[in-house]
Amino acid sequence: MNPPKTDARRHHDPEVRGFASDNYAGAHPEVLAALALANVGHQVAYGEDEYTEHLQGLIRSHFGPTAEAFPVFNGTGANVVALQAVTDRWGAVICAESAHINVDECGAPERVGGLKLLTVPTPDGKLTPELIDRQAYGWDDEHRAMPQVVSLAQATELGTVYTPDEIRALCEHAHAHGMKVHLDGSRLANAAATLNVPMRTLTNAAGVDILSLGGTKNGALFGEAVVVIDQDAVSHMKHLRKLSMQLASKMRFVSVQFEALLARDLWLRNARHSNEMAQRLAEGVRAVHGVEILYPVQANAVFARLPHDVSERLQKRFRFYFWDEAAGDVRWMCAFDTTEEDVDAFVAALKEEMAR
Amino acid sequence: MNPPKTDARRHHDPEVRGFASDNYAGAHPEVLAALALANVGHQVAYGEDEYTEHLQGLIRSHFGPTAEAFPVFNGTGANVVALQAVTDRWGAVICAESAHINVDECGAPERVGGLKLLTVPTPDGKLTPELIDRQAYGWDDEHRAMPQVVSLAQATELGTVYTPDEIRALCEHAHAHGMKVHLDGSRLANAAATLNVPMRTLTNAAGVDILSLGGTKNGALFGEAVVVIDQDAVSHMKHLRKLSMQLASKMRFVSVQFEALLARDLWLRNARHSNEMAQRLAEGVRAVHGVEILYPVQANAVFARLPHDVSERLQKRFRFYFWDEAAGDVRWMCAFDTTEEDVDAFVAALKEEMAR
Amino acid sequence: MNPPKTDARRHHDPEVRGFASDNYAGAHPEVLAALALANVGHQVAYGEDEYTEHLQGLIRSHFGPTAEAFPVFNGTGANVVALQAVTDRWGAVICAESAHINVDECGAPERVGGLKLLTVPTPDGKLTPELIDRQAYGWDDEHRAMPQVVSLAQATELGTVYTPDEIRALCEHAHAHGMKVHLDGSRLANAAATLNVPMRTLTNAAGVDILSLGGTKNGALFGEAVVVIDQDAVSHMKHLRKLSMQLASKMRFVSVQFEALLARDLWLRNARHSNEMAQRLAEGVRAVHGVEILYPVQANAVFARLPHDVSERLQKRFRFYFWDEAAGDVRWMCAFDTTEEDVDAFVAALKEEMAR
Amino acid sequence: MNPPKTDARRHHDPEVRGFASDNYAGAHPEVLAALALANVGHQVAYGEDEYTEHLQGLIRSHFGPTAEAFPVFNGTGANVVALQAVTDRWGAVICAESAHINVDECGAPERVGGLKLLTVPTPDGKLTPELIDRQAYGWDDEHRAMPQVVSLAQATELGTVYTPDEIRALCEHAHAHGMKVHLDGSRLANAAATLNVPMRTLTNAAGVDILSLGGTKNGALFGEAVVVIDQDAVSHMKHLRKLSMQLASKMRFVSVQFEALLARDLWLRNARHSNEMAQRLAEGVRAVHGVEILYPVQANAVFARLPHDVSERLQKRFRFYFWDEAAGDVRWMCAFDTTEEDVDAFVAALKEEMAR
Repeated sequence: MNPPKTDARRHHDPEVRGFASDNYAGAHPEVLAALALANVGHQVAYGEDEYTEHLQGLIRSHFGPTAEAFPVFNGTGANVVALQAVTDRWGAVICAESAHINVDECGAPERVGGLKLLTVPTPDGKLTPELIDRQAYGWDDEHRAMPQVVSLAQATELGTVYTPDEIRALCEHAHAHGMKVHLDGSRLANAAATLNVPMRTLTNAAGVDILSLGGTKNGALFGEAVVVIDQDAVSHMKHLRKLSMQLASKMRFVSVQFEALLARDLWLRNARHSNEMAQRLAEGVRAVHGVEILYPVQANAVFARLPHDVSERLQKRFRFYFWDEAAGDVRWMCAFDTTEEDVDAFVAALKEEMAR
Repeated sequence: MNPPKTDARRHHDPEVRGFASDNYAGAHPEVLAALALANVGHQVAYGEDEYTEHLQGLIRSHFGPTAEAFPVFNGTGANVVALQAVTDRWGAVICAESAHINVDECGAPERVGGLKLLTVPTPDGKLTPELIDRQAYGWDDEHRAMPQVVSLAQATELGTVYTPDEIRALCEHAHAHGMKVHLDGSRLANAAATLNVPMRTLTNAAGVDILSLGGTKNGALFGEAVVVIDQDAVSHMKHLRKLSMQLASKMRFVSVQFEALLARDLWLRNARHSNEMAQRLAEGVRAVHGVEILYPVQANAVFARLPHDVSERLQKRFRFYFWDEAAGDVRWMCAFDTTEEDVDAFVAALKEEMAR
Repeated sequence: MNPPKTDARRHHDPEVRGFASDNYAGAHPEVLAALALANVGHQVAYGEDEYTEHLQGLIRSHFGPTAEAFPVFNGTGANVVALQAVTDRWGAVICAESAHINVDECGAPERVGGLKLLTVPTPDGKLTPELIDRQAYGWDDEHRAMPQVVSLAQATELGTVYTPDEIRALCEHAHAHGMKVHLDGSRLANAAATLNVPMRTLTNAAGVDILSLGGTKNGALFGEAVVVIDQDAVSHMKHLRKLSMQLASKMRFVSVQFEALLARDLWLRNARHSNEMAQRLAEGVRAVHGVEILYPVQANAVFARLPHDVSERLQKRFRFYFWDEAAGDVRWMCAFDTTEEDVDAFVAALKEEMAR
Repeated sequence: MNPPKTDARRHHDPEVRGFASDNYAGAHPEVLAALALANVGHQVAYGEDEYTEHLQGLIRSHFGPTAEAFPVFNGTGANVVALQAVTDRWGAVICAESAHINVDECGAPERVGGLKLLTVPTPDGKLTPELIDRQAYGWDDEHRAMPQVVSLAQATELGTVYTPDEIRALCEHAHAHGMKVHLDGSRLANAAATLNVPMRTLTNAAGVDILSLGGTKNGALFGEAVVVIDQDAVSHMKHLRKLSMQLASKMRFVSVQFEALLARDLWLRNARHSNEMAQRLAEGVRAVHGVEILYPVQANAVFARLPHDVSERLQKRFRFYFWDEAAGDVRWMCAFDTTEEDVDAFVAALKEEMAR
């Protein structure tokens, strides 16, 4: 078939893929097809459309009967809207020091939400009840920002994954202290795929009150959603989303992407594939002498330590990022469109550069 | 051809269109085609992609050699990023009382940007040097939020349009007082189409320092851009965009939509068409006794006053909004996909309902 | 007696007084004596002291059995703490365009509290139910900052005073719309003195939910208090005060000043005197041809219009401020320490300058 | 002499003193005498008075010819105004994890100033160039809040003191990275007394750009000052102070207190005395078997570890706070009015309780 007409042109080589980020991938073709399907006629703007309405049923099927989705633009927005929803003006958020909300948002939680983050160092990006306790105190002390919510990421920023029991223990601990639990699920699909459980098992069945559900890294063009599970914990989510500048006018186009992902199993296929590619990559890397894998490979990321000059030469052949340049740590991410050939070529290149 | 496969379904009647908002329309097919074109392979995330790079050349061709675009998600985001960029922590924004940033953002400028808005009532949504002077004073008085920028909308919230000379006079006046000028151009294309001038004539040629360039209302799926013209007036735009939660990870998909709009004349075709539909609508309405058109129809909006019960009956047939329900004022918007048949049917319905 | 020893020296002429502001006066000697009385030994910091405890009883005697005081540093702080206490993150405040919180706080309500102010022009600084209705709508509309509180000043910024019935009508109107009422009482004592009613009549008896109680303008060295009347309307006031940077460590020194003012009638003596001086001044001014008094003189301020050059000459003899320099409007304030001789000398000087 | 008349009464026992906080003390009598001296006649409000003007000369004599003081209400205010002054909207502050601004302000830096704090664990509350480097990176990375200022406290929150050389090294390191240096000097006088150097040696001579100068803990009733040393680093301090709700109307009363402290040596006498009492206390404690002193005693605080039940019994006799209740750590503070008898009685009581 002829491609539809447009004045835009293609500016890049569609055959080049790297290991820099799951955000380097485009959208899954089925997502794009969904956009085309919805892109006719008029729909009410700002979330009163049929697609956003329909999405609610899918969200309930994945996250339980109390769940409600509030589509937003991006992960920063999802996290900051969700955290504002479960904190007062004097509230604080307990999170891992390595959490995305702490290190990768240019201070948006503090600046937009007025949120204080109470951070805890973790060995592998995962919180535990004991680690939470290092910041869980002082609720009556007006000098201290009040811990009102624990925020965990599943999968974590370091590519590790909580078991359902671990999440349940965290939630029980938080709830026992009167705190809510927020789950940053920008890669929740990957964690569910790894554990081979429904997303519900990792969220409302485990006690999570509110979550950020990732779309972009799971194969969407753009779009995330705040999913409220404990409706009593929040109020006026629509106002919060709007004042946080995360209200899409043509919201049908966020919602229909989630429909494409969630209606059957595209979310799982995408996640499972990127996880498998990470496993293949880890396996290949383990066979290369002198390269250390730093954390358990439980999602779609491989963190490794290798000589700095090797990384630099390798970066000329494949895009990826240093994680801690001084230590020689790098991050390799797989996406839904990473191929076995990509992985094998990368491992071969790694071997070559290590051997030089 | 067969539609590409997706698990999503179509949930609405593609033949129904109304006059509620230019945001009720979907994306122009050429925009969607552009997305498909860009949706292959990997591209650097967060704006370092080839599409965003290429967009800069188009932006310079439309807005002059100093112009630089910072794609964002939505209009609220574009306005608040732009206004933060040209204000200090103590700064204030002079704008029309009817300005979108004042009445339609749930306080985002104040809450996210910490901005004080100094508003001026206007007869038709348009500022003048004299109106600006009602708020332009007290720069040395620490008790007063310091007026640092004038924000005007082109076209205005009331569907009126500034001439190039009017904008130039506002800019000269603002600059003479040491203030910058921000233009909210969510419908800049419509204004340019009405005046039959390049967008440059209404922005940098007139003295505008920074603008919000609308994509969504002009036929995009989503996406706006902050366009900086006076580079000396701003700093660290990327940080500002990120902390304002407006940084798209897969930015190529915002940029390529703008490429589809700006590479040749899609921006103008879309704007011109919606303007023409508004003219056709106004013409039709003027022939209906008892309906008053409230403002000059200079873009794609018609504001009218008619009996409240007539509006209510008409709303059952076509979607549109009350503007001032107590006064009986309504707003009818045309979009790039409004057809002559839509307009004629609407006018016929209006006649019928007025006659009942 | 010999003055106590100090290395500080007196730098000004204690005999010079003007009409610029009730903040130009110092503290009443009885207030200073109270400070000395409390200034011995140790007291728990941050509000757990005996003086703050004792103050609560006085506050209840003046403002009813549910009242509770939260001493703060200044009026800006009192207003912004109080308004945050009765708004959500998405809340807005309806107030007069001339309100201090709108025109005289360098945007602190917006920047510190994230508050949106919905302003209404008023003829004399006073709100009415009808004026409130110009902004009281749109509670379900997420695009609009939600009106959650009406803020009125008693006395107003223009020296006018609401009757108890007027306040009651405002409160009933606000409450009927689900809004709270905040009273900016930086000059509440003056209003009560004018009306010859207890402060309670103007606050909780009339339906006010929370107020800012002025100390500084009433003869204190420094210090105001947020007084909560409707305890159900607020939560965690101490946290709010602290995060708003309004928590005094040696709080006994704020509280004991209020004790000096409120224990018997110093608050009333001070207010009554400054009011009487304003009446004497108004009377004198009315006898001067060519000077127009702009608003009813109901507290301790006289607003007048006179030739600009006369004002300028007069300012060389007595300090006072232009209110609207372009219009020739000036403000003359009386303080608790203004003397009859001060007033008479000022009126004589005004006559002289008008005659030149 | 007869005490001056007031309706306030004394509510506490002036003979009781504890070791809870230097904020439990009142004001030094010479400070109160200064207030009385200034408390006559009229003075321009909001900082245009003769006392604030005169203060500037004293500030320059203590902090060098470029220094300028901006009196504020409290330490939270001083720190947040100062830090805003040297950061952009995207800026971050590197500080010790134990810093007051991080743990004791209920999130005011984040909520009022929109500041991101980048914290570093320290063994004794003191930063070093190496510790700073753990957060000093990523200036070009929009995902990271930009490190723009290092904030150190002198004395630290743990009662330790930087040498002039240590401060100089920190400042050189910070400046080499383009960062400014803020010094939280709520107990700067104590540090200067310990080191027997002028305050200038610890601030501008060492490279500090801006500081918070403590008054309250040094014997004032209330009041701190932001002292700007590098005038090029800041702009519009008066606006910043006002919008941060830290502008005193009757500012002469803050300024004259600083005059009393700084005109000759009251600041030093007060600091030296409280330091000496802490040394006497430490000496006494060291002789008590089973009590461990945790940090070098270099200012007016002694941190100790002792059995929890002993602390609890001791707290019934003398007020003091747990610092880390789980660990059994306590903090004992001396004030300008702590007597040798207070210290000796406390040590005796400690011995008794340890012996039970």
